[in-house]
Amino acid sequence: MDSSFIEEIAPQLIKWRRTLHALPELGFMEYITTYRIGKELEKMGFQLYIGKDALEENSRLGLPAQADLEAHEKKAREWGVEESWLDQMRGGNTGLVAVWNTGRNGDHVGFRFDIDALPINESADSGHHPAKNEFASKEENVMHACGHDGHTAIGLGVAQYISSRSDHLQGRFTLLFQPAEEGGRGARAMTDKGWLDDVDYLYSGHIGIQSLPVGTIAATTPGFLASTKYNAYFKGVSSHAGINPELGKNALLAATTAANNLYGIPRHHDGVTRVNVGKLAAGSGRNIIPGDSYMEIEVRGGTPEIAEYMAEKATRIIQAAADMHDVSCTIEAVGVTEVVVCDEELIPKITEWCATSELVKEVQPSVPVSGSEDVSFIMNRVQKHGGKATFMLFGTKLDYPHHHPQFDFEEEALLVAVDAYIHILNGGSAI
Amino acid sequence: MDSSFIEEIAPQLIKWRRTLHALPELGFMEYITTYRIGKELEKMGFQLYIGKDALEENSRLGLPAQADLEAHEKKAREWGVEESWLDQMRGGNTGLVAVWNTGRNGDHVGFRFDIDALPINESADSGHHPAKNEFASKEENVMHACGHDGHTAIGLGVAQYISSRSDHLQGRFTLLFQPAEEGGRGARAMTDKGWLDDVDYLYSGHIGIQSLPVGTIAATTPGFLASTKYNAYFKGVSSHAGINPELGKNALLAATTAANNLYGIPRHHDGVTRVNVGKLAAGSGRNIIPGDSYMEIEVRGGTPEIAEYMAEKATRIIQAAADMHDVSCTIEAVGVTEVVVCDEELIPKITEWCATSELVKEVQPSVPVSGSEDVSFIMNRVQKHGGKATFMLFGTKLDYPHHHPQFDFEEEALLVAVDAYIHILNGGSAI
Amino acid sequence: MDSSFIEEIAPQLIKWRRTLHALPELGFMEYITTYRIGKELEKMGFQLYIGKDALEENSRLGLPAQADLEAHEKKAREWGVEESWLDQMRGGNTGLVAVWNTGRNGDHVGFRFDIDALPINESADSGHHPAKNEFASKEENVMHACGHDGHTAIGLGVAQYISSRSDHLQGRFTLLFQPAEEGGRGARAMTDKGWLDDVDYLYSGHIGIQSLPVGTIAATTPGFLASTKYNAYFKGVSSHAGINPELGKNALLAATTAANNLYGIPRHHDGVTRVNVGKLAAGSGRNIIPGDSYMEIEVRGGTPEIAEYMAEKATRIIQAAADMHDVSCTIEAVGVTEVVVCDEELIPKITEWCATSELVKEVQPSVPVSGSEDVSFIMNRVQKHGGKATFMLFGTKLDYPHHHPQFDFEEEALLVAVDAYIHILNGGSAI
Amino acid sequence: MDSSFIEEIAPQLIKWRRTLHALPELGFMEYITTYRIGKELEKMGFQLYIGKDALEENSRLGLPAQADLEAHEKKAREWGVEESWLDQMRGGNTGLVAVWNTGRNGDHVGFRFDIDALPINESADSGHHPAKNEFASKEENVMHACGHDGHTAIGLGVAQYISSRSDHLQGRFTLLFQPAEEGGRGARAMTDKGWLDDVDYLYSGHIGIQSLPVGTIAATTPGFLASTKYNAYFKGVSSHAGINPELGKNALLAATTAANNLYGIPRHHDGVTRVNVGKLAAGSGRNIIPGDSYMEIEVRGGTPEIAEYMAEKATRIIQAAADMHDVSCTIEAVGVTEVVVCDEELIPKITEWCATSELVKEVQPSVPVSGSEDVSFIMNRVQKHGGKATFMLFGTKLDYPHHHPQFDFEEEALLVAVDAYIHILNGGSAI
Repeated sequence: MDSSFIEEIAPQLIKWRRTLHALPELGFMEYITTYRIGKELEKMGFQLYIGKDALEENSRLGLPAQADLEAHEKKAREWGVEESWLDQMRGGNTGLVAVWNTGRNGDHVGFRFDIDALPINESADSGHHPAKNEFASKEENVMHACGHDGHTAIGLGVAQYISSRSDHLQGRFTLLFQPAEEGGRGARAMTDKGWLDDVDYLYSGHIGIQSLPVGTIAATTPGFLASTKYNAYFKGVSSHAGINPELGKNALLAATTAANNLYGIPRHHDGVTRVNVGKLAAGSGRNIIPGDSYMEIEVRGGTPEIAEYMAEKATRIIQAAADMHDVSCTIEAVGVTEVVVCDEELIPKITEWCATSELVKEVQPSVPVSGSEDVSFIMNRVQKHGGKATFMLFGTKLDYPHHHPQFDFEEEALLVAVDAYIHILNGGSAI
Repeated sequence: MDSSFIEEIAPQLIKWRRTLHALPELGFMEYITTYRIGKELEKMGFQLYIGKDALEENSRLGLPAQADLEAHEKKAREWGVEESWLDQMRGGNTGLVAVWNTGRNGDHVGFRFDIDALPINESADSGHHPAKNEFASKEENVMHACGHDGHTAIGLGVAQYISSRSDHLQGRFTLLFQPAEEGGRGARAMTDKGWLDDVDYLYSGHIGIQSLPVGTIAATTPGFLASTKYNAYFKGVSSHAGINPELGKNALLAATTAANNLYGIPRHHDGVTRVNVGKLAAGSGRNIIPGDSYMEIEVRGGTPEIAEYMAEKATRIIQAAADMHDVSCTIEAVGVTEVVVCDEELIPKITEWCATSELVKEVQPSVPVSGSEDVSFIMNRVQKHGGKATFMLFGTKLDYPHHHPQFDFEEEALLVAVDAYIHILNGGSAI
Repeated sequence: MDSSFIEEIAPQLIKWRRTLHALPELGFMEYITTYRIGKELEKMGFQLYIGKDALEENSRLGLPAQADLEAHEKKAREWGVEESWLDQMRGGNTGLVAVWNTGRNGDHVGFRFDIDALPINESADSGHHPAKNEFASKEENVMHACGHDGHTAIGLGVAQYISSRSDHLQGRFTLLFQPAEEGGRGARAMTDKGWLDDVDYLYSGHIGIQSLPVGTIAATTPGFLASTKYNAYFKGVSSHAGINPELGKNALLAATTAANNLYGIPRHHDGVTRVNVGKLAAGSGRNIIPGDSYMEIEVRGGTPEIAEYMAEKATRIIQAAADMHDVSCTIEAVGVTEVVVCDEELIPKITEWCATSELVKEVQPSVPVSGSEDVSFIMNRVQKHGGKATFMLFGTKLDYPHHHPQFDFEEEALLVAVDAYIHILNGGSAI
Repeated sequence: MDSSFIEEIAPQLIKWRRTLHALPELGFMEYITTYRIGKELEKMGFQLYIGKDALEENSRLGLPAQADLEAHEKKAREWGVEESWLDQMRGGNTGLVAVWNTGRNGDHVGFRFDIDALPINESADSGHHPAKNEFASKEENVMHACGHDGHTAIGLGVAQYISSRSDHLQGRFTLLFQPAEEGGRGARAMTDKGWLDDVDYLYSGHIGIQSLPVGTIAATTPGFLASTKYNAYFKGVSSHAGINPELGKNALLAATTAANNLYGIPRHHDGVTRVNVGKLAAGSGRNIIPGDSYMEIEVRGGTPEIAEYMAEKATRIIQAAADMHDVSCTIEAVGVTEVVVCDEELIPKITEWCATSELVKEVQPSVPVSGSEDVSFIMNRVQKHGGKATFMLFGTKLDYPHHHPQFDFEEEALLVAVDAYIHILNGGSAI
């Protein structure tokens, strides 16, 4: 059944992935990425929703600075993004939603693919597959180090299948190409637009996470953590470090003291905790006592209660570090993810449907992870309205962890993922 | 005697100062500043030395990144700096030396004026004199917050005097308009070029430092501190903060631990110590364990021995913080200043010569400071060859300390300073 | 079956517990406790092994200072411990082993009860059950805050049963009353003496840990953590803090820097981690730079690999903190526990045997914990030689956590525990 | 003149010093020391005031715990201190005042000698003079490491002179043998008793501080620092570190965070600053999250304003560290010293009077120090009532700094000091 489809599309899948990989864009700045996705989907015949038609503008979290948005919009224009598209996306309204209605009764099936990249400088090491094959990031300090280039390519593959096999399918299909997953900033904006409110089945997933053989997939993933993301701004008083050290109010020391103590938030007996200060910037010049500093922080917990515990401790520590150095402090919540609970009744179905796949060698019922994903908002909305949802894994060997400058995955995983989704479609939506 | 000169030049002095203030440039990027100074001195008839004729290229410390230099060179061109000037200054060879030879036997008298600005965002507060009078910095995050705009204007005033009264003077005059004083990075490059080797008297000075009434000057300044400036680069391993925290080697925590402990270097019984972490940048994204971090540090001591003590402690702490978090570390010395000892025999002379000034109300023999100045290299070179040197203060009320976003000085101090230098010239170099 | 036994012994159980509670003794100083236990067992007719006959002297870890041992031996004599007993226990050879041989073929069944207390000052709050009922600790800063007083009473209850019902039992019984469980210091010494080498079934357990209703017990406890305990000694140089701060090498700052960073050891994706600095002492006088400091540390991990990871990180941090402050450092490993894996085939047996108990209301198959226990050495030895072992929980409501100054348990839990063990004995060892 | 006196008394001086050195006592526990001093002065014929007759009980600061006082009183009794003396001193009312009235008109001259020791464990190194000569401290962790044993011996020497040469002298003499100088705790209590209110000249001094040749003395000492001493008590909640880490409120981390940040209080442009955490104790057991901690802190400043600045910063940091870890905190001020200003008109007098001494080789007018001394209260009281006061130095080579376990001084310095005081007496008070 349809195994020829994968053979046909394989070269295209890899081409899509590499093109996207070479031009990564950070969250809410995926102008070129969105445009490229959109132009492909347009060709396939999908109905597209972009800009404020795709997401609820005011539900976006952690928007980039206006100047960064504008600079990137300018670059997008130079790269050939059409003005009409830019007009709709302007101000960080990236991502899009693609809808296909077979016209036949049947389930409403949703898919979600995340499309953004990370602020990491990709390795130029000759042993690094993208560098060796000349599709490494052309952008300094931006990299697809989490596999979202692959996710996007998978999404296009699934779309191509729906488009080309539409007359064998029933029901409706909604494909969310979501911006700004990193930092948990984009999913809520799509969720709040109402796309999920009548979805019967929602599928999403991730390449990697665990190092598993290509061909192994997981039907569900327990253990995704609830998380809260903060920006903290410390405001002190700068002074000449040699002449008047006593007149300074040191915002750098407030931040460094906060950072060191944040990592010491006590572990919790009831489940997993995480804390990270991912970014810290303080001060302007060597002989000036730093009057300003800035931190990006993230805390996670294995249950909503633990996430709340971590958040309470973190804000206490940050505020006290400010008090200690007599500086003021603003703490801004810029992203949130919820706990994910996959619907276990999908396990036997996915297992059965994929049993006929030549590419899917093994379906593990459940593989635990300890990251966070704002797909949580999407899944929770589906489930709230009575639908079923799962977040799957697509196996690949991982020589380096996610978010590492040498992160990479085996491209055969793309074929496996598309084939798995096709079998799920055929299982659930075939005429 | 010549009091008319000050009256005549006063409006020009203030205009020079405000023009410079509005377009501040960081060390080794004073392209526009140097050009403006040079064009004025050219009109006055000085013989000019710019670029590699003014300074010893390889003796510069803490040069900006090549990309920053090029971006600023481009901006300088847009602002009208002539291509021939840019050609000579390219690559951070800023500052210039202006020479005047009366043709008559007499002392060789040197003056040194520093011209660079600081990475501080100038206050837009309406109570801030430059903001209110519309000459505040037009450059974001660059500000003349140490009075070097004033020093440069004073230098031009002194030059104007020499030029216009040359027939009443004897001997030779060398005026150093030095780049990159902040960070102690530029003086050695001019010193190593040999300008000071036969100077008999060297005068330099600073507006402010202590809050003193306008009209009060100090003939000498004991207490300038020896200093060493470091950049520290920590290199760890980034990892996904949720999924694989144990695989990260956290360069941010190495830096924050170093920062917190650097401030705790024990005080020294034998004199003043200072330490500052003026800048810290770490990490790239919220959910990535930071694999890189960077700090700008400065230590100072009241004696060469204490400065050495501070430097030894600082490098030990930085290295141990790296070891603690299992990251590697590179410590780069990027600037140095020496201890300054003013020649006390200049005190009675300056006091006597300035006694006839209407603007100089009081000459304090000696006002202690605790900053650092790379004029130390210049003065020590003069003294090594048998010359005399001093570093003076020119009083102004200070509502905010140096390096504060609202730093300002009373512009009458410019007139006092020029008048003091004129009286010194008349005392020592008049026919 | 035998429910009358519990009724009979109940008052005695509570009396034993309270007497032990009122006179708690720290690890390897349980002279009076051992003596009291021994005198009871002697009366019951057990064969006793005390001192070096009970444990392998050189396998003890973290022995108290000789002076503390001697002071406590003196106190034990004053409290009436016989000289002959003291002679055998002298030097911290506390605890004892009681053996009962029915003379009939059958399994060799082992029980282990831990007997030591903690360095905590018991609450005098009137709401605190021991304070209200006047059996709170009479020793300052020593307290049974982990329930070992209850464990010891349970052991005596089980012993009483074996003694009084011996003619209905078969096989052999070995009861270990183990010293110094806190800190993981005593079990290895009993294990190395060979007591477990032919044990067929080994039962141990804990009151509390989870807050469960009295009557609920757990047949097994997954999740006990492997742990390593360290003492760290920092040696610097003291100096007058006002006159010569620069001559000091600050051992206090080495310790505080180590402490703050130890808590920041990254979490591990593969399981639970724990770290604690339980004690820190530094310095001798206010105006003296501290030349000495001392820390007691403990790290734990959910797997042997994670425990090793934590240990490697901890020693790195401690050494680097010493280097940072230019002091020397000695790190001494003073206690270890291993991971515990309970034999799951005991679950249905325990469940079945306890089904007839009137006191045991519910047997939960498995209740996870995240403490550490040196029963790990005992269980691992039994299992290595082919025996089966488990560590059970005996439910009680917990108003305060273990190791809290107001820790207490419901005394009915003692009855439940003895009854559970009796039913296990009857199930496995009855004629 | 009187040089024979020194020759005669020299062996006695050294004997006194060594006897005192061997039995050092901490502040407000100098029972034996006071008794020994008193018995000598009684023999000489002085009128003595001890206990509450010597000091104002309620003005004492930082009194030891009642239990420590009682233990030491018991020891004093065992060492032979008469019951009647103990009765007067009981509760930490140590030290004494000795008065001699010549009956002739003349100045009232005061001397102050401090008598307490430090909590330091004296070195047993064979190169350490007291160890080699068998008069090292017999008390563990108590040591005369600041020379107060010498000061006391000097005081007895001066007393002997007054007593034996009384008929050549005029006016009155008041000798304060002050307890608890370390920590700035005792002087105020003697001052508040009124002893200084009509003193015309007050002399005190210190052996060492600077390493100077024996025979060199300083007439005055600028630079003594104002200081404030604090005890900080942190109160959190203990918990089992493995099972319920999230329930603990960690008082140890509050203290270590405070300590690390206290050392980072910014230096002050206007003068010397000092900070020390001399003692830190936290926690009770390795696997218990520490619920209690304690710190002894001291801050100093070169001016009253700087001392106030340091105190304000220190209390802010301590409170914020408590807030950060959600523990409560009590900050107790336990000692204070003021800034000392020696009367410069004494310089020529002391210089002149000592010119005839064979032992005093050189009188330096002024030798700066940077310690703190509660003689400040005594001198400030004298000066407030119109008297003159100075604090002198008596030179000795110093191989190790004050408060070092190998601190020692050259015993010839005792002779020089007594001879200097005799010449001062003869200069100012001879008939």
